[in-house]
Amino acid sequence: MDPWKTALSDADATNIRIRGYDLTSLMLKSSFADVLFLLHMGRLPTEGEGKIVNAILIAAVDHGPGSPSAAAARLVASGNRQAPEAALAAGVLAMGDVHAGAGLTCLELINSGVVRAEQRSLSIEQVAREIVTSAIETQTRLPGLGHRVHTTIDPRTNVLFALAAQYDIASTGVQFMRALEQSAEELIKPLPINIDGALAAVLYDIGCSPLFAKFIFILGRAGGLSAQVMEEYTRERPMRIRIPVEYDGEAPRDVP
Amino acid sequence: MDPWKTALSDADATNIRIRGYDLTSLMLKSSFADVLFLLHMGRLPTEGEGKIVNAILIAAVDHGPGSPSAAAARLVASGNRQAPEAALAAGVLAMGDVHAGAGLTCLELINSGVVRAEQRSLSIEQVAREIVTSAIETQTRLPGLGHRVHTTIDPRTNVLFALAAQYDIASTGVQFMRALEQSAEELIKPLPINIDGALAAVLYDIGCSPLFAKFIFILGRAGGLSAQVMEEYTRERPMRIRIPVEYDGEAPRDVP
Amino acid sequence: MDPWKTALSDADATNIRIRGYDLTSLMLKSSFADVLFLLHMGRLPTEGEGKIVNAILIAAVDHGPGSPSAAAARLVASGNRQAPEAALAAGVLAMGDVHAGAGLTCLELINSGVVRAEQRSLSIEQVAREIVTSAIETQTRLPGLGHRVHTTIDPRTNVLFALAAQYDIASTGVQFMRALEQSAEELIKPLPINIDGALAAVLYDIGCSPLFAKFIFILGRAGGLSAQVMEEYTRERPMRIRIPVEYDGEAPRDVP
Amino acid sequence: MDPWKTALSDADATNIRIRGYDLTSLMLKSSFADVLFLLHMGRLPTEGEGKIVNAILIAAVDHGPGSPSAAAARLVASGNRQAPEAALAAGVLAMGDVHAGAGLTCLELINSGVVRAEQRSLSIEQVAREIVTSAIETQTRLPGLGHRVHTTIDPRTNVLFALAAQYDIASTGVQFMRALEQSAEELIKPLPINIDGALAAVLYDIGCSPLFAKFIFILGRAGGLSAQVMEEYTRERPMRIRIPVEYDGEAPRDVP
Repeated sequence: MDPWKTALSDADATNIRIRGYDLTSLMLKSSFADVLFLLHMGRLPTEGEGKIVNAILIAAVDHGPGSPSAAAARLVASGNRQAPEAALAAGVLAMGDVHAGAGLTCLELINSGVVRAEQRSLSIEQVAREIVTSAIETQTRLPGLGHRVHTTIDPRTNVLFALAAQYDIASTGVQFMRALEQSAEELIKPLPINIDGALAAVLYDIGCSPLFAKFIFILGRAGGLSAQVMEEYTRERPMRIRIPVEYDGEAPRDVP
Repeated sequence: MDPWKTALSDADATNIRIRGYDLTSLMLKSSFADVLFLLHMGRLPTEGEGKIVNAILIAAVDHGPGSPSAAAARLVASGNRQAPEAALAAGVLAMGDVHAGAGLTCLELINSGVVRAEQRSLSIEQVAREIVTSAIETQTRLPGLGHRVHTTIDPRTNVLFALAAQYDIASTGVQFMRALEQSAEELIKPLPINIDGALAAVLYDIGCSPLFAKFIFILGRAGGLSAQVMEEYTRERPMRIRIPVEYDGEAPRDVP
Repeated sequence: MDPWKTALSDADATNIRIRGYDLTSLMLKSSFADVLFLLHMGRLPTEGEGKIVNAILIAAVDHGPGSPSAAAARLVASGNRQAPEAALAAGVLAMGDVHAGAGLTCLELINSGVVRAEQRSLSIEQVAREIVTSAIETQTRLPGLGHRVHTTIDPRTNVLFALAAQYDIASTGVQFMRALEQSAEELIKPLPINIDGALAAVLYDIGCSPLFAKFIFILGRAGGLSAQVMEEYTRERPMRIRIPVEYDGEAPRDVP
Repeated sequence: MDPWKTALSDADATNIRIRGYDLTSLMLKSSFADVLFLLHMGRLPTEGEGKIVNAILIAAVDHGPGSPSAAAARLVASGNRQAPEAALAAGVLAMGDVHAGAGLTCLELINSGVVRAEQRSLSIEQVAREIVTSAIETQTRLPGLGHRVHTTIDPRTNVLFALAAQYDIASTGVQFMRALEQSAEELIKPLPINIDGALAAVLYDIGCSPLFAKFIFILGRAGGLSAQVMEEYTRERPMRIRIPVEYDGEAPRDVP
């Protein structure tokens, strides 16, 4: 078999290097957020970029045991006491397109919106208005806007945007999401930028890919999932969960 | 890299063989249960063995959406509409030691109990009585006995034992579980042999390993999990599940 | 929380029913393939339908330890000796769009092709030719045709089509895939219908959904995955796998 | 259904709190490592504790594509292009008892060793010597010692121990692992403390549980796994992996 190639890391008897940097130096000088950035982007972040990735990881870390990912992790923990990695993995699996996937979709939307603005010589605001109009016509949800709990404002958005402004990172991505929020408020109703929209905006301005936007959210939330599993193991007995069920299918019948 | 060795299957441009048997012949002449037996045990089953494995797969196939495995699968399906394999896998992950692991534990108990009877020249019934007494002293649950829904009888047990009797397969394994049930009734309370105890008993008498007992249950239940995921996708909207949550932690406090 | 609704199964203290049928009767009278059909389709299969689903499960059951799903399962088994369910689940996760997803894609292709033929009053053969022409232009792969091992014929296809003919099930689905194969041979090169194309064809003729086509393949292959995990546990020591790796990234450099 | 209780986080329309602390304050003032500590331990870390957890996350982050977890993630990525979360989860599943589980086992060993020293009024060094002697007799591996690549020294160990010394955290845990390494060198051969042994030692001295030791390793490595998946998606074509396979089972035979 041909060897598998990688540019991520290298190790010999006395050294481990991450993209060329000595791992022990990184352990002393860098934050975990910096190293994630390095692994996925191929370079160490600037101070502002590192602080933003760190803030996104924390923003994503937990939203209670009732979210699909946390509830799935707890259910697996409830039936599987010997494999905590299985419970954590089940939580990760819930983060598909609907739950925790909006960051990726939203970054793709910004990508295509900016291209459209350039190709048709439109302003970002004009493109945003077109997208909202089109979403109304097709009755589609706009990714990155609105939240079932945080209906007036998502507190995480302001912090990310303030960091992006402070470090001169905020650019077309933030402008695009602001324009989208503005058009949505005018044409539909107030739909504040949620954490997915906020992280997509700032990660676009940093130059990250949609896949990175998804993974950074998952990596942050994994931290909360592991705490949820630990709390389930520590405070609850096995098989404690009873989901109420109602059967509404066929009446009893005989096998022919 | 050295090639990975396998005795399970082989394929060339025109043939696929499972343990030497032509796959297309198996497709026409065998049941899926027969082929599972062949893959895991290395030989085709007798008629009775095949019918018992088939009956175990069906016995395990579903027990409603509220079991930990089905509920985990549905939660993942609720947040992940594009990867049905992820929802199915999450359900499989819930089948650890507590949920769906009793077949393995119970077969290990039979193994060790039979060895103890031989080594100390005791009857199966004497060993069973010792095990129940010891479980009372250590306040441990006996695997394979009792069920939270089927408290007086597990309907699946009788069918498996009847098949095992009909095909002259019932032997020490069934005797052991009957003795355990008997001692439990005398020393604790009526705890009928459940599906895990029943499948462990008959699989012991067939000569299967504890791991096979676990996998055959999981493979059967996987069939129900996939139907649960399909029903969630078909009848329910994304993110419909709301788990009620109560916070009982620290009051609001300032970050120092 | 509102109860979760299901039409799949129901249980009380003495009974379990699958879509209204007593589970113990199914254990004695039905094959596992029949019960899978019942759970996913809502009705018991005819004799031919049951035989076809059974044959598909067997057709999918194993293709060696080197397929992505089996290799992933073995790698997890290599690092995780206490949670066999984790190894099985990892194998299931590999069955996404590229590996084991062609049955779903192919059934969707048949669905849309048949609709197109009806709407534009074309024959199945004309539509098939259009699809192949378009695939050539866009350099897209045709789902359900060709196999990296079985280049001249996939032995599983003939058996499924023979069963479908024998039981008068073969209809538009089989006709569509035959036409696709014919056009591909004329316009590209001989690309025999593979197992994904064959199962999509016959399942279309039975009236199954694309998702069912995917799940039935996964459920069959899960049987082989569990045997692969058992063989890894039984014959190999932990951590035995050494993947050869070549680093081609940045040279050593200092953390600034 | 009774509400699920949690002390981890709380949210209302305008706030999210992690163990009582406002999430937006944490986003600005804390590192991700600090917040993981807070979630799992119930309190914010001291400066030294935070730096050690950060260093452990980085120490664990990647060890090349050939480790069981990374290879499993890449195999799933190879067959599943639409669900990156599935590839990441498969990698997590490989981190069971053998691969990445040694931190947990090692922390349990320290726990029981320290208890034994207290109960029998022995020194840590005496207990360590007993454990090594016993491991030689039973031919068991000692967790936390030795590494297949880093045979003379694990570079990550020194950094963690230096941090633990600098912040006055090093105590019985570090003493115990040093004593174990010393006895192993005298009675077997030089087996340097590896990353699992090092993190177990310092986390013991911080007061963490064995489960936390496992999870913190998994959370760190998850960062590398996601980069491995991204590299597979970006640089490699689907299904590119060919594992060499050798069949050594039954010769072709007829189905009876």
